[in-house]
Amino acid sequence: MATIREIAEKLGVSISTVSKGLNGANDVSAELRQKILDTAVEMGYVTKRMKKEEHKKLCVFVENMDYESANQFGYDIILGFRQAAYRDNWHVEVLPITPGFQTKEKYDTFMLKNGYSGAFLVGFALQDEWMKQLESTGIPTVLFDNFIRKNPNVAYIGTDSFEGIDTAIEHLTQLGHTRIAFLNGSLHSMITEQRQQAFYDSMAAHNLVLQDELVANGYYVAESAKDFVPSFLKNKATAIVCGNDLLAYGTIKECEKCGYRVPEDVSVIGFDDLPLSAYTTPALTTIRQDRLELGKCGYMALHSLMNHVSVSKTLLRPEFVIRNSTAKAVDR
Amino acid sequence: MATIREIAEKLGVSISTVSKGLNGANDVSAELRQKILDTAVEMGYVTKRMKKEEHKKLCVFVENMDYESANQFGYDIILGFRQAAYRDNWHVEVLPITPGFQTKEKYDTFMLKNGYSGAFLVGFALQDEWMKQLESTGIPTVLFDNFIRKNPNVAYIGTDSFEGIDTAIEHLTQLGHTRIAFLNGSLHSMITEQRQQAFYDSMAAHNLVLQDELVANGYYVAESAKDFVPSFLKNKATAIVCGNDLLAYGTIKECEKCGYRVPEDVSVIGFDDLPLSAYTTPALTTIRQDRLELGKCGYMALHSLMNHVSVSKTLLRPEFVIRNSTAKAVDR
Repeated sequence: MATIREIAEKLGVSISTVSKGLNGANDVSAELRQKILDTAVEMGYVTKRMKKEEHKKLCVFVENMDYESANQFGYDIILGFRQAAYRDNWHVEVLPITPGFQTKEKYDTFMLKNGYSGAFLVGFALQDEWMKQLESTGIPTVLFDNFIRKNPNVAYIGTDSFEGIDTAIEHLTQLGHTRIAFLNGSLHSMITEQRQQAFYDSMAAHNLVLQDELVANGYYVAESAKDFVPSFLKNKATAIVCGNDLLAYGTIKECEKCGYRVPEDVSVIGFDDLPLSAYTTPALTTIRQDRLELGKCGYMALHSLMNHVSVSKTLLRPEFVIRNSTAKAVDR
Repeated sequence: MATIREIAEKLGVSISTVSKGLNGANDVSAELRQKILDTAVEMGYVTKRMKKEEHKKLCVFVENMDYESANQFGYDIILGFRQAAYRDNWHVEVLPITPGFQTKEKYDTFMLKNGYSGAFLVGFALQDEWMKQLESTGIPTVLFDNFIRKNPNVAYIGTDSFEGIDTAIEHLTQLGHTRIAFLNGSLHSMITEQRQQAFYDSMAAHNLVLQDELVANGYYVAESAKDFVPSFLKNKATAIVCGNDLLAYGTIKECEKCGYRVPEDVSVIGFDDLPLSAYTTPALTTIRQDRLELGKCGYMALHSLMNHVSVSKTLLRPEFVIRNSTAKAVDR
């Protein structure tokens, strides 16, 4: 656990300033106070007041998602959630969960037994046992990238896939691409299906012919690219849009292995903007999800549900980040 | 403008309690304090602090929507917005706007000239001049029931039409209805198009055949029902879902005029749950939009945009309110 001194050192302010910030004193500006609180959360500092109010607890359940290092997808989502919850004096616990555990213990039981007032679920799959139980839970629950119909206690937050994919296709058509391939994850998740539909819609909106041989579903890992990219290239794709950045990393590598340069011969676009995507060679053009804001949104939605405002869906706008993996289309 | 004494009388508490609540004193519970603040907003009380901070201003622009009496659709939306904004010490001005005014003065110019930090727009139409300008505005703006693509400074809030209509169709199928008609408003608004699509989707999801002669687009006023309901009845509709409550009021009246009883011969469902809908004869079964919460959501979205969190879309869940205008289907 971090000390006040460590927070002060990190921010380059005095110990008494940090202490004032943590205690909400008037002579610290609102902006600095927020910075101190956010840093305290990031460094794992726990105030006496929080220790006292330990019954006021929220839980973040994580499945199928890496979140332990700052380079990983889930890290900022969870950090954003904790930072926002901290302002309202919530104690937040983060628990990795397996599908097996979900069959042993009912969701509502687990929540009540452990005294959690609400939860934020990230990385769950449609077929998970708890997802079924969420259709009728009475406990305020927010899902990242999953939607439960008709239960006013459950909300969904995420990034607008349609706008993200559409901006990518628009960018490619402006560069003269018409033979655009789409390498997506496997279709057993709501968000993968959403991105697939977004690709179909956007191709149609740009009057581009959809070719079956240029659409494929692998898994959200770099290795998956080698199963599909050679066939995309053989079928004369000049651009490949990927369902996430990891697939895009693999796609760039696979293009090179097949003797194609990125972006001179083939343009590649990712989805997510992982911290490493600015440092790939070439640096990746990608559809950015602001994960810190997603986490904060997750808390805001949970806060609404706990106050009986039945938010159903909150979407953030993606940001299209143009780097060096896209260029003008070439005739092949 | 209301006085502290009037607020105290309305709430049945002492003047000093109201004063403490307005000033955030510690010996008033958070709950009571909120109640005092909300009542102060509702009664138009202005604190000295608010007078001092008059440069901190937001604007609610209203077009095509009644909002001046508590029975009207817009009243609670605007009240909810003002209550939520008040907590952050914003001064809120409400301005009715015409299409003509929009062609004379640019949106951004008007906002800057009047010192507004952001705006909430309700009741605007797709073809309005300002709607076009919103595609590129740099000013934080939230729209009720309208969506602007790809501008990170503009957000959309509303009620989930798909879930609302789907719950209504589900209710009717459980009562044995198969010949379900849909009387909607005119298709020149995003929300009307959304509800129309929701009806098509939901009929398909319930394996019901869509009949062209049972779908019509009038206007969102009671009088519109007489142009379509007789033909629905001639074509053997046993249930009529309406695009809003006003159309449903007209539909009930028109059914009776044609010699059909509601709900014995024909079931009727509205959308909105206006304050009067509990008092029609029969009391109206309808899809409820929580307008106070919509207003609060509108402020929360604007607050996010003003803090550079580009919320794109926030939807609230509708609540299906079953009263006396629906019953078992009869053979005709």
